[in-house]
Amino acid sequence: MTDYPDILYEVKDRIATITLNRPERLNAYTGTMAESIKRAMAAATNDTNVRVIVLTGAGRGFCAGADMEVLTGIQARPPASEDMKDGSFDSHFESDLGPDLSVDFADAERFGYFARTKKPIIAAINGPIAGIGLVMALYADMRFAADKAVFTTAFAQRGLIAEHGISWLLPRLVGQANALDLLLSARKIGAEEARALGLVNKVFAQENFVDNVMAYARLLADTVSPRSMAVMKAQVWKANFQDFNESLATADKEMKTSLAHSEFKEGVAHFLEKRAPKFADI
Amino acid sequence: MTDYPDILYEVKDRIATITLNRPERLNAYTGTMAESIKRAMAAATNDTNVRVIVLTGAGRGFCAGADMEVLTGIQARPPASEDMKDGSFDSHFESDLGPDLSVDFADAERFGYFARTKKPIIAAINGPIAGIGLVMALYADMRFAADKAVFTTAFAQRGLIAEHGISWLLPRLVGQANALDLLLSARKIGAEEARALGLVNKVFAQENFVDNVMAYARLLADTVSPRSMAVMKAQVWKANFQDFNESLATADKEMKTSLAHSEFKEGVAHFLEKRAPKFADI
Amino acid sequence: MTDYPDILYEVKDRIATITLNRPERLNAYTGTMAESIKRAMAAATNDTNVRVIVLTGAGRGFCAGADMEVLTGIQARPPASEDMKDGSFDSHFESDLGPDLSVDFADAERFGYFARTKKPIIAAINGPIAGIGLVMALYADMRFAADKAVFTTAFAQRGLIAEHGISWLLPRLVGQANALDLLLSARKIGAEEARALGLVNKVFAQENFVDNVMAYARLLADTVSPRSMAVMKAQVWKANFQDFNESLATADKEMKTSLAHSEFKEGVAHFLEKRAPKFADI
Repeated sequence: MTDYPDILYEVKDRIATITLNRPERLNAYTGTMAESIKRAMAAATNDTNVRVIVLTGAGRGFCAGADMEVLTGIQARPPASEDMKDGSFDSHFESDLGPDLSVDFADAERFGYFARTKKPIIAAINGPIAGIGLVMALYADMRFAADKAVFTTAFAQRGLIAEHGISWLLPRLVGQANALDLLLSARKIGAEEARALGLVNKVFAQENFVDNVMAYARLLADTVSPRSMAVMKAQVWKANFQDFNESLATADKEMKTSLAHSEFKEGVAHFLEKRAPKFADI
Repeated sequence: MTDYPDILYEVKDRIATITLNRPERLNAYTGTMAESIKRAMAAATNDTNVRVIVLTGAGRGFCAGADMEVLTGIQARPPASEDMKDGSFDSHFESDLGPDLSVDFADAERFGYFARTKKPIIAAINGPIAGIGLVMALYADMRFAADKAVFTTAFAQRGLIAEHGISWLLPRLVGQANALDLLLSARKIGAEEARALGLVNKVFAQENFVDNVMAYARLLADTVSPRSMAVMKAQVWKANFQDFNESLATADKEMKTSLAHSEFKEGVAHFLEKRAPKFADI
Repeated sequence: MTDYPDILYEVKDRIATITLNRPERLNAYTGTMAESIKRAMAAATNDTNVRVIVLTGAGRGFCAGADMEVLTGIQARPPASEDMKDGSFDSHFESDLGPDLSVDFADAERFGYFARTKKPIIAAINGPIAGIGLVMALYADMRFAADKAVFTTAFAQRGLIAEHGISWLLPRLVGQANALDLLLSARKIGAEEARALGLVNKVFAQENFVDNVMAYARLLADTVSPRSMAVMKAQVWKANFQDFNESLATADKEMKTSLAHSEFKEGVAHFLEKRAPKFADI
């Protein structure tokens, strides 16, 4: 754990859990935390014993947004644009699925590697989530929330703008009018409203939140093909950059490959033999 | 009916009903069935006595997906890419609305002609629906489900990928995060969850499912202009391939044509005379 | 008020209210009304004492659609295409945010200036809304409805088509299948169904509808930065014309500007000092 300042990293039941770990600051986001998350995601991606990645927060919240001490420091010294970059693209995240399934996110953004990571990422929103913490969660593949979670975009209350891609991602999840409501008003909403809007996939009661998230993660780890998940995740993110016909051409090519693959053989065999599947690690 | 192996075809009350008819195999999808559906759709499109098309399943389900016997056969002999094509585009589906309203689906896909068909297609999901059966239903214009229907994408449990365009269509109906949930987990969901996600428009109780679907189909057949429906259907599908300004230019051109058309005259006349409309067959 | 035939215009609590005012005709839409709305929107945009714009209807409804007397007149004399244009683009709506945030709506459409207007526009749907009245409301940034409101696209019952951009806007709010249902059937839906579909953001009871709308408008007027709202509104509308990377590049550029802006200083200061913010008028 000492390898990853500001977060915890654990692997169990083929699930890697990344926990934002500054509970005394409601896990407020720092540059150090960002770097640790990225390194932990790379470790999980490259660990063949990991099939699913869960991102959550320590203590009573998920992430309060950018650390206010960092924000007040910015006023004296606005960040150079270099500080905003990922640096050179980390090849740890490059899938081996070939260029057809490479998601075309620019290097410069902060969380684009979430979309490129070949294993599914679940944001487990255990409590309050704001600002850049909320943006980060939007790059996850799915979002589950505890019923006590509270959501706010926060930016408009600080005189800021729709940062880090949220103006593109949020309307595609909740519709343009709800996105404008949440961005312009910066009002706080509860977990149930977040679910009704499409901001989170599911809400679980606080007392069994972790159990329910882990049960879903095990469903992915134990019952479906990791290769299928990797291809499908890439197909869906990639479809944001494709028209229908381009997306269909990719699907047809991948279908042919999958029909000749040993994973399909096992996919049919375990069904006919009425047993648990033994899909291959990736 | 003998003209259409593996399906039933019936016209009544200006509604054509296409029924997948392999109930002993939960209407599992075959190449023969695909060909019959396409020919029946062409017949309905060209029958001026048909205003609406309903696609449903015989017996207790809608479609179990690709026939497992076909799938196991594929393992020995993967299909040539030729088998995957529609062949030359069937001109039966070409609308007479002109090139501005031609939907640009590539020839190679299986169900793209649903979008090109000038009459509305309602998928009436009477029971379990899986795999390619679910994909087929996504190409319909609307989806109604019986409350006992159960939905699964299925592919990831077979080691397969997001086939036939579902990675593009599904996120646009249920949002990207719900699409990833349904594709990656392949979990089964019930009709009510399907409706809440936006996967189906409406849910009706099993005992009066057919009555409710037919009542809606008659609403389209009896109260609105078939020409209006044809233009609007093309506008909406086409908008997937247009930016806002292109879509608006199409609408402005079509508006001018419609204002000079006899259907508009009848549309105003029946309203002022407080009587049922007599719109023209197409 | 005499400056604006067919509407009322009032400013109070930094909220401009534009009220369609032909209650004896259920506020049926006319060319005169269209011109008044546009001039009032320009006045509100340029009044530094206005932070939010509310668009609503006088009497028991919002807007019955195009005036039937106008429609019947059209049958004798279809409008020249000149009648359909805004004329030269009204520079009153051009934001001073620079070309990166200019929304690329073509000049020819009727309500595109709603999206360009730098202040948020809330459609307060107080009762029945139909046809072009519904289209107009879709160009607002948000929609609130009274629980007695009734919605219909209407066009297909008149032999018309999906006019003025609704075939592009509606699917992005309610999904393609619900858009086709509403457009093809022209059926009437109530406020609660409209909310469930995503057609409106919120529903309030008729008796306190105005109070609730104004409370939300004051939230925008009193607690967030007008500059933030202007940038965010432009970012979200603009994202309809951008891929992810283009949208992110805009966000990164605007973030740098905002971090150096006095609005950010006030945004942090009022938070640390636990007082109401004093953001700058625009």
